[in-house]
Amino acid sequence: MAVGLSHPDKILPIAGVRLASLAAGIKKNGKDDLVVLILDEGSTCAATFTKNAFCAAPVILAKKHLSQQSPLALVVNSGNANAGTGETGMQNAIQSCVWLSEKLQCLPEQILPFSTGVIGEQLPMSVLKAGIDQVINGASENNWSLAAKGIMTTDTVAKAISRTVSIAGHEITISGIAKGSGMICPNMATMLAFITTDADVDSDFLQQCLSNVVEKSFNSITVDGDTSTNDACVLVATAKASNPQLNANSEDASLFIDVLKDVCQFLAQAIIRDAEGATKFVTITVSQARSTAEAKNVAYTIAHSPLVKTALFASDPNWGRILAAVGRADIKQLDINGVNIYLGDVCIVRNGGVAEDYSEDKGQSVMDQDEITILVELGSGNDSATVWTSDLSHEYVRINAEYRS
Amino acid sequence: MAVGLSHPDKILPIAGVRLASLAAGIKKNGKDDLVVLILDEGSTCAATFTKNAFCAAPVILAKKHLSQQSPLALVVNSGNANAGTGETGMQNAIQSCVWLSEKLQCLPEQILPFSTGVIGEQLPMSVLKAGIDQVINGASENNWSLAAKGIMTTDTVAKAISRTVSIAGHEITISGIAKGSGMICPNMATMLAFITTDADVDSDFLQQCLSNVVEKSFNSITVDGDTSTNDACVLVATAKASNPQLNANSEDASLFIDVLKDVCQFLAQAIIRDAEGATKFVTITVSQARSTAEAKNVAYTIAHSPLVKTALFASDPNWGRILAAVGRADIKQLDINGVNIYLGDVCIVRNGGVAEDYSEDKGQSVMDQDEITILVELGSGNDSATVWTSDLSHEYVRINAEYRS
Repeated sequence: MAVGLSHPDKILPIAGVRLASLAAGIKKNGKDDLVVLILDEGSTCAATFTKNAFCAAPVILAKKHLSQQSPLALVVNSGNANAGTGETGMQNAIQSCVWLSEKLQCLPEQILPFSTGVIGEQLPMSVLKAGIDQVINGASENNWSLAAKGIMTTDTVAKAISRTVSIAGHEITISGIAKGSGMICPNMATMLAFITTDADVDSDFLQQCLSNVVEKSFNSITVDGDTSTNDACVLVATAKASNPQLNANSEDASLFIDVLKDVCQFLAQAIIRDAEGATKFVTITVSQARSTAEAKNVAYTIAHSPLVKTALFASDPNWGRILAAVGRADIKQLDINGVNIYLGDVCIVRNGGVAEDYSEDKGQSVMDQDEITILVELGSGNDSATVWTSDLSHEYVRINAEYRS
Repeated sequence: MAVGLSHPDKILPIAGVRLASLAAGIKKNGKDDLVVLILDEGSTCAATFTKNAFCAAPVILAKKHLSQQSPLALVVNSGNANAGTGETGMQNAIQSCVWLSEKLQCLPEQILPFSTGVIGEQLPMSVLKAGIDQVINGASENNWSLAAKGIMTTDTVAKAISRTVSIAGHEITISGIAKGSGMICPNMATMLAFITTDADVDSDFLQQCLSNVVEKSFNSITVDGDTSTNDACVLVATAKASNPQLNANSEDASLFIDVLKDVCQFLAQAIIRDAEGATKFVTITVSQARSTAEAKNVAYTIAHSPLVKTALFASDPNWGRILAAVGRADIKQLDINGVNIYLGDVCIVRNGGVAEDYSEDKGQSVMDQDEITILVELGSGNDSATVWTSDLSHEYVRINAEYRS
């Protein structure tokens, strides 16, 4: 059950992007598991990838292809991560690109491959071949909702969003989809997310926008601290909106970044709202830190604490666990007498000790809500960071104990 | 249900140490919650404490007293951590020492206070006063088992051990007790553990022995990555065994350290065997690292992964999660082609990819056991480290969601 998130409304098409989705038979449950995004010539593409050293074969290959050619298609399979699969896995990823390139009459290097699902099993290649032969027949600009569902694994709802904005008098649109529900702690990258816009954007600036925005969206969420082997976020600009090309010096550069951030934060938060077993959506802000890194470190220490997460699941205002997490965070010379902690609007810790006006009833009234905000003021500087996380429920354990069975 | 651990057999008395335990009424369940260890004059004492910045009032006070006087008594309450309790909490800790010092006719500074239990609630002082007035009446050298039970919180079995060894022709004994089951990730310190010996040991050497041994025992375990506010480990030497005083240059120095390590590793592993909700006892060794710190970092990354822990709970040889954890560990320039991973005797990953002779059946046969060993060879150096951990079960979530209710 996703927290405050339902299936997406109509997603706006992006001129220059056609999508197709199919149940090829990789997933055992018969749901869609093969998605292709076909891009018109002239599109620009930016991407960020997982920093996990054991990154999957398709991640390695997508990075390589992106450095060689402008992509004309993205192919995504769900149900199998093609990670930890060695040389065979790499050959399979290459073969997938070859097959799709033959159908699209382009170079294999113009295809970016993505996989998500179980780690350590080889892709079922005959099933995949049959799927690739068939999938693009159904390609259409209006298939965003199908594609959002086709990339899901343990997700319970599809994640998608559209935003429009006027850039130099031209209305441009951004539409994006994402998947992810467990093994979520993106590191300088993200889960699978595909965002496209019809705007004309300079390619260096496009990468700069994505890297900037990912840090405050996909790189600020965690379910379980487990960074996936397959994280990838791709941003495509098709240049169909006829706007004057955007670059870092454009008057509307910051406006474009703001809207892109809005899209990425919605998708990142959607992943947390639909986190495995989630019953709570939790926003953790750490302020008055000496650096953003310090603030993020403290926020992640709280967000990863199994004791804080089980207290959130139980709606138990057991704030001592938050205090203990702040105290063990890897920051130097914390003066605990300067620390304040708030649960929603309720001050629970003031100057390092329990606030005099705090009562269990006040804490309980915040904890009873589905969406909870924790604010920690460190009292030592001016920087801050926000991360979003979920609670740790029986359902999380059940899902992850039973995932492969 | 503790994994491979039952209530301790008879614990050997230590000349010069008398113990008392009482149900003072701090715990709501009516079990013992107040323990005192009374030490003869001439005892030497070493200790390590939590590095959590929000360390509890009794931790701050015990450190201060230890720097001022040779302790004559340790007073321990369970059921309330006296942490996050501000100035009132500190005054209460001081008052506890004053009350006990009056009964023992010594200085308050000769008392070391310890607390464990819920964070953020004030000690019930009238209940504690009545307990302290009464508890020492029952003091005896033979009360180790009672004391081991009296310091328990969510522990399901008491943790205690004795070892004897001949030092320069004199038989000396080491007896120790420990508690801990959740909020376990000691950092340069430990959970509550009290170890005593009748050996005569130089005080500097005693601290050196403890710091050395703690690193490879209590500082090498984790249940949930949550470092407590109240961790403390105390080692007392009463000098009653008439051995020539041990110091760093003694012939038997390394023998003493070995036996002490044996005692500390037993108690540390006992905490993991009785970890909240544990159904598995897991030993994780990382070898061929460039430093011990690097090896420990990788081992802890695996040990803290909720995905690895839920797979262990499910007895699922989902080794991709171990591989993903190794890949996201914070180590520089990992060449994944040099990495081997073993589950028990079964090689699952060789040179960074799935081993050719690996089969699911082989992995399953290891995972079906209660005690599981994971070995990761990084292929980049000669250092190694071992940590011990538990799995993540439904019971862990239940215990921690219901702890205060």
